Amino acid sequence: MPASPEPEPGGPLVREVSEEQLLAEIFPLLPGGTATLLGPGDDAAVVAAPDGRFVVSTDVLVEDRHFRRAWSTGHDVGRRAAAQNLADVAAMGARPTSLVVSLVVPGDVPVTWVTGLARGLAEACAPVGAAVVGGDLSGGDAIAVAVTVHGDLEGRAPVLRSGARPGDVVAHAGNLGSSAAGLALLSAADGAPDAAPLTRLVDLHRVPEPPSESGPAAALAGATAMLDVSDGLLRDAGRLARASSVVVDMDPALLGADAALTAAARAVAPDRDPGTLVRTWVLGGGEDHGLLATFPAGTALPPGFRVVGTVRAAGPGEAPGVLVSGAEPDVPAGWDHFAGGPGSLTPGGSAPR
Amino acid sequence: MPASPEPEPGGPLVREVSEEQLLAEIFPLLPGGTATLLGPGDDAAVVAAPDGRFVVSTDVLVEDRHFRRAWSTGHDVGRRAAAQNLADVAAMGARPTSLVVSLVVPGDVPVTWVTGLARGLAEACAPVGAAVVGGDLSGGDAIAVAVTVHGDLEGRAPVLRSGARPGDVVAHAGNLGSSAAGLALLSAADGAPDAAPLTRLVDLHRVPEPPSESGPAAALAGATAMLDVSDGLLRDAGRLARASSVVVDMDPALLGADAALTAAARAVAPDRDPGTLVRTWVLGGGEDHGLLATFPAGTALPPGFRVVGTVRAAGPGEAPGVLVSGAEPDVPAGWDHFAGGPGSLTPGGSAPR
Repeated sequence: MPASPEPEPGGPLVREVSEEQLLAEIFPLLPGGTATLLGPGDDAAVVAAPDGRFVVSTDVLVEDRHFRRAWSTGHDVGRRAAAQNLADVAAMGARPTSLVVSLVVPGDVPVTWVTGLARGLAEACAPVGAAVVGGDLSGGDAIAVAVTVHGDLEGRAPVLRSGARPGDVVAHAGNLGSSAAGLALLSAADGAPDAAPLTRLVDLHRVPEPPSESGPAAALAGATAMLDVSDGLLRDAGRLARASSVVVDMDPALLGADAALTAAARAVAPDRDPGTLVRTWVLGGGEDHGLLATFPAGTALPPGFRVVGTVRAAGPGEAPGVLVSGAEPDVPAGWDHFAGGPGSLTPGGSAPR
Repeated sequence: MPASPEPEPGGPLVREVSEEQLLAEIFPLLPGGTATLLGPGDDAAVVAAPDGRFVVSTDVLVEDRHFRRAWSTGHDVGRRAAAQNLADVAAMGARPTSLVVSLVVPGDVPVTWVTGLARGLAEACAPVGAAVVGGDLSGGDAIAVAVTVHGDLEGRAPVLRSGARPGDVVAHAGNLGSSAAGLALLSAADGAPDAAPLTRLVDLHRVPEPPSESGPAAALAGATAMLDVSDGLLRDAGRLARASSVVVDMDPALLGADAALTAAARAVAPDRDPGTLVRTWVLGGGEDHGLLATFPAGTALPPGFRVVGTVRAAGPGEAPGVLVSGAEPDVPAGWDHFAGGPGSLTPGGSAPR
């Protein structure tokens, strides 16, 4: 078991300060943004929506479901909460403008955990120009961070899941399997790795790195469909396929070999074939928040995208869905937030339960 | 102790269905709205913002902090979560357009509790034309409902907390003390009341009834400042006063006698002077989500508003803040979400701890 990445600080706990004191600590840390017309402090914020529309999405992270305090600092959780929400905006082809954050926090959490969260949100938002414009605080028995993100389509049509057409290529931008491998490394009884390629995977489990810029770029390049890969490549490709009433055929050979994932598989399960575990992580692991998009054949793909499959029409009597090399997938197709099942636990899953 | 308002149903529990099955149950229940350009089901929704701006606010309700499952149905919690968010939009003088909801729900919660929540959200949103356009679900050990609400200013300037000017009148629309009295009735050892004025107070604790229409009406009438009274009249009046750098002098005589609150005080504490308890509820009780606004003297107040005080400049060396009949208040000034204190527990407080 790795040591906590955040040593116990000596400062006050949340229950030892008033809500207004806590807010006074947080407010100066929050990032501003060019779309903010009225920031935090009133009953509501006011945000610009220059083309008369905004995109909006919400995601919640829950302690001991999506992260553990022993494994992730407040800063990590803040960066992750922002990143996975920013990915939802990118997946529409939009640019993020603003976030609001509802935070449930037990009284025994150090104030520095909460200020770390605010710094993490800021660190993830600043490069894309998004502001944190509001929030709410409540006590509770476990930490929960609910983020709502807003984005600007800049006059473009949103890129939906439902637009893939037979003949399109399927392309992916971002990481695949990194978060699942990082979690497996953290979960391994012999402790956290200290070799660089493996610690990088652990870092990517703590804080995914969605390719935010690739969303608007894909929209501009003519993407016909797009979604955020949050629950595993096959599961999310299946969603795109069903929404578009097509068959998506993934070619795992096109995903390429990944030395870091192979090294992680050897570290986690020295007696097993690493290829099987890597394949499980790449095709079934969630929470990397890459972008899966379809483009008309022959499109010059934006930087960061690589072709991972093709789109074809469903045959007579064939249901829309996802195949791997033309056959039914034989790896767990992602995890479910409630139900147990083969996809819900490591390896192949993506969150502590 | 009153009986649970929702008998244990025989249907499945949340952990017995998949996330997609649960979403399939919820989606048809969610209200649509005229501003929705793209509803739930993709990575993000798209909402119209006709004047090129939107207002946004977020609030979270946590089980055993803000509600108890034994005292409130899912339907109650859905209505309450929507109502208190809609109140934040109204307090800016805006009209609500859309909500997104992050729901943390333990596996042992009946599916009917969750569908009840969706129905409650719909019931609160439909009359004002607001849609639920997205959401997220997660497991967890206690229910948490984080709602983010968006509104349309219809070309008007937002009404801030900071605009009150010396000479303005202070006016309130909505209920005062009802939620605190209802909670005190629920907390009383001898059980829930069955007489109509008292059950009405309990209902108003379970589901507040903010005067949503009064927000845009106040803006149109020329309100100089406004806020949602969520943490108690004095505490929120103090916020308005400090934001505006003025002194707000409340006249409790102008609040009027309330027969239902007096009856509740007699039922809760037969041996005490009911007037003291009523004053505590009215001036210190939170979560009624009325609107406190200031208007230039002589303004014809919109329906529902009644004058409750006046605004004057702070004297030399005097700090901005709230007074009652010219003197420092002697009742608890609302409750704090984390710290204990005289205002944080019943009577006078507003939430189970």
